[in-house]
Amino acid sequence: MNNDLQKFISEKTPIIDAEMKRLIASENSPSNLKESMLYSVNAGGKRIRPLLVLAVLDDFGKEASEDGLKVACAAELIHTYSLIHDDLPCMDDDDFRRGKPTNHKVFGEATAVLAGDALQTIAFGILTSLQHTSHEKVIRLIALLANASGANGMVGGQVLDMEGESTSLTLTELEEVHRNKTGALLSFCIEAGAILAGADEEELKQLREYATNIGLAFQIQDDILDVTSTTEQLGKTANSDTASDKSTYPSLLGLEGAKQQLEKYHQNAIQSLTLIKKENSMLKHFADYIVSRNA
Amino acid sequence: MNNDLQKFISEKTPIIDAEMKRLIASENSPSNLKESMLYSVNAGGKRIRPLLVLAVLDDFGKEASEDGLKVACAAELIHTYSLIHDDLPCMDDDDFRRGKPTNHKVFGEATAVLAGDALQTIAFGILTSLQHTSHEKVIRLIALLANASGANGMVGGQVLDMEGESTSLTLTELEEVHRNKTGALLSFCIEAGAILAGADEEELKQLREYATNIGLAFQIQDDILDVTSTTEQLGKTANSDTASDKSTYPSLLGLEGAKQQLEKYHQNAIQSLTLIKKENSMLKHFADYIVSRNA
Repeated sequence: MNNDLQKFISEKTPIIDAEMKRLIASENSPSNLKESMLYSVNAGGKRIRPLLVLAVLDDFGKEASEDGLKVACAAELIHTYSLIHDDLPCMDDDDFRRGKPTNHKVFGEATAVLAGDALQTIAFGILTSLQHTSHEKVIRLIALLANASGANGMVGGQVLDMEGESTSLTLTELEEVHRNKTGALLSFCIEAGAILAGADEEELKQLREYATNIGLAFQIQDDILDVTSTTEQLGKTANSDTASDKSTYPSLLGLEGAKQQLEKYHQNAIQSLTLIKKENSMLKHFADYIVSRNA
Repeated sequence: MNNDLQKFISEKTPIIDAEMKRLIASENSPSNLKESMLYSVNAGGKRIRPLLVLAVLDDFGKEASEDGLKVACAAELIHTYSLIHDDLPCMDDDDFRRGKPTNHKVFGEATAVLAGDALQTIAFGILTSLQHTSHEKVIRLIALLANASGANGMVGGQVLDMEGESTSLTLTELEEVHRNKTGALLSFCIEAGAILAGADEEELKQLREYATNIGLAFQIQDDILDVTSTTEQLGKTANSDTASDKSTYPSLLGLEGAKQQLEKYHQNAIQSLTLIKKENSMLKHFADYIVSRNA
């Protein structure tokens, strides 16, 4: 990993972690519900979504302000709620995530459903608390988050993904799943950061392109790692896609084809950055990291 | 039921129903998810929450504007999502609601979880689309909805309710459950209507009092009906509380005691209206209806 990115991640991750805990702890919530939310919030993860928000701010020469940090955390709380619900017995039925028992294994299914529900609510609530952002931008951010995380975005993608499990998808259909399931929220992070940073229309356009491409690249690398890694390396069950006969980039394109596709999206992302003179930036380092990460 | 209220409800209910369908239909959602959301949105119900928003507007001499209708529907979509999740096998495990199979019985548990998730998102998204309300008020409404529906409100109340099932509650604890589980969202409806109508601080204060009191009255009447009605009259299983040994107003106070408590809250609600010269109003008719309804 690039040194600047490594430094950035080591500096920002504890700040993100602390802010998420603070935001949950400040809720006037029944203690069992709060514990359940904190359990999943504290379960770690790479924090790619909030780090992307802060990376955009960094690349535009803006310090990660109080508001930037809140937006970053709102995105991660949406991601966290989706993981809790995805892991439920009626969904993916996963007992472990990041090497720890999943939320419903610890708190029971009912509390896990409600913890997910409440984390979603908190994410929207946080966006109403921005103090140094214009009202107009706040509403724009909330609208973008709703669009990225609901039926048009993440949740819709989850439904398409479930439907795809019982059938063989084309490459176009597979991309549609991922554009929604993971791409939409990643794009929110980039666009939200750009709005907070005061990016102009051309910059927003190119950053959206960048986001779409790293979103797809992220998923291809996930699929590749599922085939090429061990369970220990991943912190989750390896070869789960092959075991479940799921359509993936390697299953549709072969491992070499998937790697080529990955590199194509990687280059597209860098091209978008070059067009707005951000070819030497934290976002560039992020794009490199996403295609080369091994967990 | 009072004639004016009857007329108001017959006029407004179809408008609310049509707007909710329009709002869901306009989502760019996978068809199965959309069907699942529409199924629960179309499953009927008394529409008390959206009607309360519109009643406040009516009492302040404001026509139910486009924005008022959207806010009304956002509240009902939050209520609808909570019913879908409450009915899940891991929660109340209900097969029927309003005489129809529950969402997960028709669409499966996974889709029901996701339909609930997406309905919550849509509710917040709708509030960002108000066209004739100041940005400041829009953000205030979104913050209020987040507070009323999340860990501090409805979802928190659901957790307290679950925890209360295995233990005997005091009257204070029972009221805490209901203030959160049903009261918070009802209060949102009244306060949101008042904000849209441009109510002043004293009016807001008294309307909050009114909302708290009719919220508790609503729940006591629910408990009373559970004891005194048949399953056919209710459209859901009667005597379910007694069967599950749940703490209710009749179980804590006896049937007569519960009826006295109901009348106390009813009078408190009317007193608040009188203080702001709304003693002859649609809200007054609503308070009368809530304590005398038989389903």
